[in-house]
Amino acid sequence: MKRILVLGAGRSSTSLIRYILENARAFHWHLTVGDLSIKSAQEKAGRFEGCEAIQFDINDTDVSKATISEADIVISLLPASFHPLVAFRCLEAGKHLITASYVSEEMKAFHEEARAKGLLFLNECGLDPGLDHLSAMQVINRIRGVGGSVTAFESFTGGLIAPETDPKNPWRYKFTWNPRNVVMAGQGTAKYLHAGKDKYIPYQQLFQRTTAIHVPEFGDFEGYANRDSLKYIDTYGLYGIKTMLRGTLRYKGFCSAWNIFVQLGCCDDTYVMTHVDKLTHAGFIDSFLPHNSHHQIVQKLCARFTIRPDSPEIEMLEWSGFFDETPIGLNMGTPAQILEFILNKKWKLIPGDQDQIVMWHRFTFEQEGKYKQIQATLVARGSDETYTAMAKTVGLPLAIATKLLVSNKIQSRGVVIPVTSEFYTPILHELGNLGITLNETEVHESPRLS
Amino acid sequence: MKRILVLGAGRSSTSLIRYILENARAFHWHLTVGDLSIKSAQEKAGRFEGCEAIQFDINDTDVSKATISEADIVISLLPASFHPLVAFRCLEAGKHLITASYVSEEMKAFHEEARAKGLLFLNECGLDPGLDHLSAMQVINRIRGVGGSVTAFESFTGGLIAPETDPKNPWRYKFTWNPRNVVMAGQGTAKYLHAGKDKYIPYQQLFQRTTAIHVPEFGDFEGYANRDSLKYIDTYGLYGIKTMLRGTLRYKGFCSAWNIFVQLGCCDDTYVMTHVDKLTHAGFIDSFLPHNSHHQIVQKLCARFTIRPDSPEIEMLEWSGFFDETPIGLNMGTPAQILEFILNKKWKLIPGDQDQIVMWHRFTFEQEGKYKQIQATLVARGSDETYTAMAKTVGLPLAIATKLLVSNKIQSRGVVIPVTSEFYTPILHELGNLGITLNETEVHESPRLS
Repeated sequence: MKRILVLGAGRSSTSLIRYILENARAFHWHLTVGDLSIKSAQEKAGRFEGCEAIQFDINDTDVSKATISEADIVISLLPASFHPLVAFRCLEAGKHLITASYVSEEMKAFHEEARAKGLLFLNECGLDPGLDHLSAMQVINRIRGVGGSVTAFESFTGGLIAPETDPKNPWRYKFTWNPRNVVMAGQGTAKYLHAGKDKYIPYQQLFQRTTAIHVPEFGDFEGYANRDSLKYIDTYGLYGIKTMLRGTLRYKGFCSAWNIFVQLGCCDDTYVMTHVDKLTHAGFIDSFLPHNSHHQIVQKLCARFTIRPDSPEIEMLEWSGFFDETPIGLNMGTPAQILEFILNKKWKLIPGDQDQIVMWHRFTFEQEGKYKQIQATLVARGSDETYTAMAKTVGLPLAIATKLLVSNKIQSRGVVIPVTSEFYTPILHELGNLGITLNETEVHESPRLS
Repeated sequence: MKRILVLGAGRSSTSLIRYILENARAFHWHLTVGDLSIKSAQEKAGRFEGCEAIQFDINDTDVSKATISEADIVISLLPASFHPLVAFRCLEAGKHLITASYVSEEMKAFHEEARAKGLLFLNECGLDPGLDHLSAMQVINRIRGVGGSVTAFESFTGGLIAPETDPKNPWRYKFTWNPRNVVMAGQGTAKYLHAGKDKYIPYQQLFQRTTAIHVPEFGDFEGYANRDSLKYIDTYGLYGIKTMLRGTLRYKGFCSAWNIFVQLGCCDDTYVMTHVDKLTHAGFIDSFLPHNSHHQIVQKLCARFTIRPDSPEIEMLEWSGFFDETPIGLNMGTPAQILEFILNKKWKLIPGDQDQIVMWHRFTFEQEGKYKQIQATLVARGSDETYTAMAKTVGLPLAIATKLLVSNKIQSRGVVIPVTSEFYTPILHELGNLGITLNETEVHESPRLS
């Protein structure tokens, strides 16, 4: 009997828990789900056999030590900031740990000790980071295997809404992830490499400098750059690469409309607005526009952004209610908090909604003097508003890695991220069995991307 | 004999020191100039009779206590952050203090104690803040005196270069003030009031939402909003005002060109760029532009900003050398530091340059049911690169206030800013004698500005 402990019973835990329970009888596993809220833990775990729900607070030393010491392996979905403490407790008790969080400096520091104790601390094994590593490294290593040299790597991932489940939504987007992170996305400067040169995109340019992406059968998308694309050169061993760009994927048209919020200053979280209790949706937008007694908001936006009143951007803002004289319903807030609150009125997932994850990579490589290209796409679909595509793509790689580990199929120890064949071959294979597959197309004569 | 102590012998001390020395014999004053650098103090004071130069460090408790205790009045040109400590020493020793800095919370806290001891701690008595208060309050109180009610106040001040002394400079601007502050100007969100509504301008809109200003005989200018216009409602007692906007003045065309730096992200001071030692001026700009193997930088800028290659914006960047393949000459730096360094190659004041201060106010007021307008303009001209307009307009109000105080013509005590007739009447009168005058034009039937 192997005892698996899942910490955190939030929205992305559903598919993880279901996968473990589906395997529990055959593999003789016992599952414990712990959450600060016993109610959340019970909701996610309580109705399944062989599964126990407990109240769990990582800051409660006695309880967390006792709970972790009873487990054989810990999967943590807690916020990333708790992971150094979780790792410390796992090291103390001699337990493996699996997370979907980025490896922090504090986490890195556990590497030697964990390895010495024969423990695996596997991180970045969810969607992004996670599936991006698995899928990219499988292709990169195959290219290397045939003597190819990767000269450009571009990769975009997005959590979207499946458009046919919300056909009237012109954004083709809803909040399937932390809404605050969506509103704050991109603040700071994005850095990437293009044709051998370091390039910088400040926030005010970010949603205007997008990459167009077409995915056959799924349509037209666009990607905006993530903050730091350069660190992946090291992660993937792509030394000498000329172009390296990672980013976030949205349906075509999203960025141009979102850019209006960015340019107006609606995503600013550094100050509290005044008289918010008296503001309407339209008044909120108008606070960021110059006064003009002859022009309505739409006219002012059209003049400012050189767009037409029947443009997609205006349609999207209108659909979201930004021209309505509806009271916001908050007494105070920063622009970013108010924007999130108004957007959430239409962007909250409701029963019947299905989300969709789209991941797209483009590898340009030189092989025998020719430039070639591979495009690889992974699309995952939510089953409903509980077993979302987000929950599947974050939770299933974690769950499959857990299964591999307890079955003694993983030899790596220490603080590790899943960039080797030991991880990507079996995890991508199993994901394929579960209907999540990477589709590749190869172009044998590509223009030299430089 | 009255002993006057001037702390700080930087560039803006020249006119202050000269004015005090010109009055020293007639009024029996002794002047001491203290600076961290004895050399700076000697340069500014050493060649004049009745004037002593000393090394002065406010953080050296013994020396600063002794020096301040020997003075009757202290004028501080030290950086604003030192003023709470200077004020503490003045309070301790029972000395008056005069500064050109904004009143901080720490300074405000000295009010009761200073008043109880019969001391004046006069702040915000330079140019901006200073001359702006003096000139605005004179007009505002006159309007009130005839039963008028101010409905709108707009005010812009700028330190510029006199265009005929640098006729080939298309910016009509050089660094006459701290260059770093110029490069960093406007970061954050500007707040103002227009037609009774709170308005916000984020940095990315700031240089695109300017106010056009025409000053007869001096030409066309434009102003961008300062960070907080609203606090002046309280300062000037303009309760119930509908429009309140304060800002910075530049020659027409400056803001549109500066906006290119803002949009590209060249003013960012939050990260250090890579490979700066290998970058040229042109390479610096290109770091912020998308890669395009068919287009040169100018073409990329023209496409991005919808301007022509012969536009004033391109001409200004070209004049500043931003398209040259000249090495920058720095080994490292943030974008803001590099921008400042490149700009300084052409924007440093050189012998023969004369600077120019332009201050412009527009008051709209209701009087007997009619809306009227007064525009008031003050233009000051530098004599040379030492007795600059900046040094005159910062230093002379301080010097005149000092003369009034030691002549017992100021009754106010405590922490004060110069917004009452006791200050503005004699100071503006004396500035007029020195050739710095406010010119007013009144429009008797104004459109209602709302």
